[in-house]
Amino acid sequence: MHQRLKQQLQFLIEIDKVKSIFRRTRLFDKSRNENDAEHSWHLAMMALILSEYANEPIDVTRVVKMVLIHDLVEIDAGDMIIYKVKQHEKTEKETAAAERIFGLLPQEQKQEFIELWQEFEERGTPEARFAAAIDRLEPVMQNFYTDAYAWREHGIKAEQVLTVNRRIEEGSQELWDYAKSLIEECISKGLIS
Amino acid sequence: MHQRLKQQLQFLIEIDKVKSIFRRTRLFDKSRNENDAEHSWHLAMMALILSEYANEPIDVTRVVKMVLIHDLVEIDAGDMIIYKVKQHEKTEKETAAAERIFGLLPQEQKQEFIELWQEFEERGTPEARFAAAIDRLEPVMQNFYTDAYAWREHGIKAEQVLTVNRRIEEGSQELWDYAKSLIEECISKGLIS
Repeated sequence: MHQRLKQQLQFLIEIDKVKSIFRRTRLFDKSRNENDAEHSWHLAMMALILSEYANEPIDVTRVVKMVLIHDLVEIDAGDMIIYKVKQHEKTEKETAAAERIFGLLPQEQKQEFIELWQEFEERGTPEARFAAAIDRLEPVMQNFYTDAYAWREHGIKAEQVLTVNRRIEEGSQELWDYAKSLIEECISKGLIS
Repeated sequence: MHQRLKQQLQFLIEIDKVKSIFRRTRLFDKSRNENDAEHSWHLAMMALILSEYANEPIDVTRVVKMVLIHDLVEIDAGDMIIYKVKQHEKTEKETAAAERIFGLLPQEQKQEFIELWQEFEERGTPEARFAAAIDRLEPVMQNFYTDAYAWREHGIKAEQVLTVNRRIEEGSQELWDYAKSLIEECISKGLIS
């Protein structure tokens, strides 16, 4: 077998590990926590279905690629809760992870994916802002439908939820209006304070 | 909230159920069976990484979309093992499922996804043939790395494995050569007979 295909297959086997990285949020049926592969798949579906709500014109394919790969770095860096993360530590760990994991690929594919991942992290483009918006929207919806499970489990306050998730607004005003209404309902029900 | 966004969100919540539909194959680390959401995510990654091996020129975005949605029908129809499936029964159940599930979406999105799903099922285009190829390749790889777990569990014979997975060849000669080498190694090790 060619070296190139061998490298690609090694990468595809390595990334199976994201299926065992569990997030803080529950599935909508409350049965268990979601893992990173499922989360990435769900974001890709959200990108396909909700792209019309982006604040700026976007290349949907680029968003789909970004969300499919955005959590691969967690294979090495682990899942960090967004409300308690130390940004400096996160960046350092995840940059090393990106280098190792995408480094399994042939050079030009490694380059493409590292750039996509950096674009997602930096949120300097309309695509990255929309990808970041849906990355925040999914857990807000999951919390709403599971009686604020993850927020309560980790003692997150209403103020933090509103502040951290306001990033949705940078990508989509309409989706932020929706997310905010869910958060406010959780507050008015006394689920978060 | 607008009726249109409401429909889209209902669809996005409904499809969470594929995370609870488990397949016959194990994760590469053998810890548990894979579910449909994880499988769909992995195929999307394979489409991005391996598209250069398609027998014919393909629109990769179309393949990614196809594999992301191809198993949503299993929410209603369930997962059927490819070696024992009754094609007539499968088609009937899955067509009704596609109508109900994609029917949650606004009309033009429903239409787009039903057409994509039918294209995948019919394998009449280069994109559908490549999508079908990677849909077969992933479980061959999973079986290879888990001592033929699913094949042995269900008493599948070497002849069946070779016949059913030959479909990979329609999408990619190179990936079929690789898959065949894995199957032959399982045979030579006596894992399947």
